[in-house]
Amino acid sequence: MTAREDAALIVVDWGTTNLRAMLLAADGATLAEAGSDDGIGSVAAGGHEAAFERLVADWPKVPALMAGMIGSRQGWREVPYVTCPATPAAIAAGILRFETTAGRPVAIVPGVMVRSADRDGDVIRGEETQMVGLLGRDGGYDGLAILPGTHSKWATMQDGAIADFQTFLTGELFHLFTSHSFLRHSVTAGDGDLSTFEDFALGVRRTVEEGLPFLAAIFSVRARQLLDGTDQHANRAYLSGLVIGGEIAAARAAGRLPESGAVGIVGARSLARAYRKAFEVAGIATETLDGTEMVLAGLTRLAREIDFLPQGTQP
Amino acid sequence: MTAREDAALIVVDWGTTNLRAMLLAADGATLAEAGSDDGIGSVAAGGHEAAFERLVADWPKVPALMAGMIGSRQGWREVPYVTCPATPAAIAAGILRFETTAGRPVAIVPGVMVRSADRDGDVIRGEETQMVGLLGRDGGYDGLAILPGTHSKWATMQDGAIADFQTFLTGELFHLFTSHSFLRHSVTAGDGDLSTFEDFALGVRRTVEEGLPFLAAIFSVRARQLLDGTDQHANRAYLSGLVIGGEIAAARAAGRLPESGAVGIVGARSLARAYRKAFEVAGIATETLDGTEMVLAGLTRLAREIDFLPQGTQP
Repeated sequence: MTAREDAALIVVDWGTTNLRAMLLAADGATLAEAGSDDGIGSVAAGGHEAAFERLVADWPKVPALMAGMIGSRQGWREVPYVTCPATPAAIAAGILRFETTAGRPVAIVPGVMVRSADRDGDVIRGEETQMVGLLGRDGGYDGLAILPGTHSKWATMQDGAIADFQTFLTGELFHLFTSHSFLRHSVTAGDGDLSTFEDFALGVRRTVEEGLPFLAAIFSVRARQLLDGTDQHANRAYLSGLVIGGEIAAARAAGRLPESGAVGIVGARSLARAYRKAFEVAGIATETLDGTEMVLAGLTRLAREIDFLPQGTQP
Repeated sequence: MTAREDAALIVVDWGTTNLRAMLLAADGATLAEAGSDDGIGSVAAGGHEAAFERLVADWPKVPALMAGMIGSRQGWREVPYVTCPATPAAIAAGILRFETTAGRPVAIVPGVMVRSADRDGDVIRGEETQMVGLLGRDGGYDGLAILPGTHSKWATMQDGAIADFQTFLTGELFHLFTSHSFLRHSVTAGDGDLSTFEDFALGVRRTVEEGLPFLAAIFSVRARQLLDGTDQHANRAYLSGLVIGGEIAAARAAGRLPESGAVGIVGARSLARAYRKAFEVAGIATETLDGTEMVLAGLTRLAREIDFLPQGTQP
């Protein structure tokens, strides 16, 4: 068992609604974890140092490497985006370093952006650490990786770099429909595993197989309840299938689905399960990768690049 | 000038958020108008008669013909849907008649539904009166009519009947994005005529011409602000173009756009203007029809069918 006196680094995932920190040993082993709801959305300008020190007050005063919205204009310090194709080395070179008023070294990971003449721009802040983790796997990672979530990211990895990516608002849309739209009256409030419902597969088929555009399919959630008396839990599963299926269909139309090979899904267990099921219905093979593991792998790799951790060590 | 003593009928448009009434003479001429925010969403069960009588307390005690959500399960009395293809006569035959406790004759227009084996069901409550108005025009109406709004309706009229229709959640989606999603930070709160912006046309082209699925296009609203510093008013116009363009693209993919001939747009002036502009960008001819005029034409026609107004009179 590694003790706290071996602590070498704190890695921080600081988003809009949450602040999460892990205390690591020099070899990357996790010694402690902490979290709070001091997301950047609720911390006033000038309050970031205090919010962070409050969370890790009991931990050794080691350097901290941070990623997420904390590097945005609304965060602690704004860190400019690195442009795709982005290698881990390029991302490390874009890291912003400074010291807190108490003298603690802090480093913030930059976001990554796509800017090209032939399509709209796109941005990431936070998920780039998981992509760096993916690229650092034995044998590297080549091809498509999907990071489902509020803002689902479809990233293409090539030649050891994040080559390109695109954002889909899938999770946010599902939340808007189930919480703020008139469709909320047609679905239950609860969640649980929706992907086991036959109605989930039906929703995926509607959008992926039948090619029905998402905007044309969505009202059927209401009609099913009114005309068929569809159970509200099954209807929530159907809506989930429509939304995730709509994402897959939209990505395919945008040329993002590979012609062969498995699609990588990086994320929390329940969400990854739903995407795996949706791709199964669509007839596409998948490989699931643990999101938390990838974050940690990515952050420790970046920490080694900037000498926040000793070179060549692995947990 | 027709006086109130000529009053023959009150026609009522009673939706979820609003209650609107017009006092008509026997020839269909409008004598007075009134409105309140006693929509069915805010009137408790058993409170409909009182809410209505409060609004028209100063008017003569003539019969009332009502349309909209007032005929839904959450309304005053539930009126079953009439199935497509639905002629004005079939809709009139589905009207529910009763008397208030004070003895006033009341009639509620039924909604219309689509049920078929080869696609999802769909429902309308309220817009059917505008469609009846359209069908009653000199020479009738044949072809596609679009009724933009919170729930935009694409209806096909054929052989003097509402043959088929489909609902798109365009207006609701625009509201959700601009009021409840993270995109609200990228657009202004104000409205005004957005269709005059070059960015509106750009949004329409993205989804209609370039065929970019709506779900793939939407995040660019945020990216434009972050990367290009796009003005928030122009960005709101861009989002409006993406949403309306997404509706047109989805309807085309669902086989709803005619190969030739003008598309009818029935609606309030500002919304009709935006749709006209979007179809212009898409290279499709349109004809604009006044929504209020169509409601009145539809309701007076139905009133004559059930002898609430004398036969054969026209304003």
